[in-house]
Amino acid sequence: MTAVGSPAAEEPARRRGRRPAGEDTRAAILAAALSEFATRGYEGTTLRGIARAAAVDPRLVHHYFDGKDDVFVAAMQLPVRPLDVVNRIVEGGVDGIGERLVRTFFAVWDTDEGRERIVALLSSVLSSEAGARMIKEFLTREIFGRVVAVLGGPDPELRASLAASQMIGLVMARYVVKLEPLASAHPDDFLPLVGPVMQRYLSGTFD
Amino acid sequence: MTAVGSPAAEEPARRRGRRPAGEDTRAAILAAALSEFATRGYEGTTLRGIARAAAVDPRLVHHYFDGKDDVFVAAMQLPVRPLDVVNRIVEGGVDGIGERLVRTFFAVWDTDEGRERIVALLSSVLSSEAGARMIKEFLTREIFGRVVAVLGGPDPELRASLAASQMIGLVMARYVVKLEPLASAHPDDFLPLVGPVMQRYLSGTFD
Repeated sequence: MTAVGSPAAEEPARRRGRRPAGEDTRAAILAAALSEFATRGYEGTTLRGIARAAAVDPRLVHHYFDGKDDVFVAAMQLPVRPLDVVNRIVEGGVDGIGERLVRTFFAVWDTDEGRERIVALLSSVLSSEAGARMIKEFLTREIFGRVVAVLGGPDPELRASLAASQMIGLVMARYVVKLEPLASAHPDDFLPLVGPVMQRYLSGTFD
Repeated sequence: MTAVGSPAAEEPARRRGRRPAGEDTRAAILAAALSEFATRGYEGTTLRGIARAAAVDPRLVHHYFDGKDDVFVAAMQLPVRPLDVVNRIVEGGVDGIGERLVRTFFAVWDTDEGRERIVALLSSVLSSEAGARMIKEFLTREIFGRVVAVLGGPDPELRASLAASQMIGLVMARYVVKLEPLASAHPDDFLPLVGPVMQRYLSGTFD
């Protein structure tokens, strides 16, 4: 079966039993997206390519998803859309961005489901070059640019990547290695220590 | 075949072709150690247990290795014995410990072989609970205690685990995710940024 017509053409097709619709179509798009992201990376994947792989009209992809990052978030089963969170964090500018970032991050991810998803993401990074590239490109394209744009000072890209390394390390140490006392601490216990460090990376000062 | 006699009894036994000696014995001990560490964790593994699993006299383990951490380092094919490096770092006390730690770490690991080994270690952490426990226990027992002992101030264990999280994150971001510009930067480029952060975690001040 090849690509079908517009979203409007979808309903009759489904009634004739020729293709799934609704949740099935969405699931088919996500399955195609997973495969496309894994083989082409985040940068190399297009909504049009996902539509082609799912054998649906590209307009259907736009019907279900609000852009490539939204498809990625759904395919990876992330509990939030990072773009929304990052926008909230950078809206306040550089003042207090370190503490805001750490606080928001753990509010989103420090749940059973959040931990499980982010550990799964990290596993895919370590299990294949393609997985690593996919995550790197997503972070670089969808998150870094927005953070770097609000930073002043020298080497903002290097400082942003160091800030990201600290967040990746917190996830690894707390959720995967389960290093104590970090693993059992309440975020309120380490926020006063990590916040100023993130602030230092992002603004060059400690508060 | 069961345990044999003392190291002195080894040579005649080999000549009679009854058991391997020298490198073969060492290799048998390391193979047994890998299996013991993976199933019992670092804490639960003993030199006596390794000897039993390798079917050699415990004195042979002591003949080839200078303690449990030394067996671990050899079994994991680490390029250095972390204990030696940590001792050098903490000898100078808290003054400048952050920069010393980062500089020494990258001098040791930032080679092709070093990267390969440390990424393999991280992969074993992510691939199984047992792998994660083994690494956690090694870090906690052999490295943390020594670092925490020289730290002053409140919550030295929490601050040491946060410092470890930053080092784990640097390894993940630079070697695995290959986040730019961190991945391609020379250590001298990020040392001035990471050193003060590590110093902050370890001493509570920035220099």
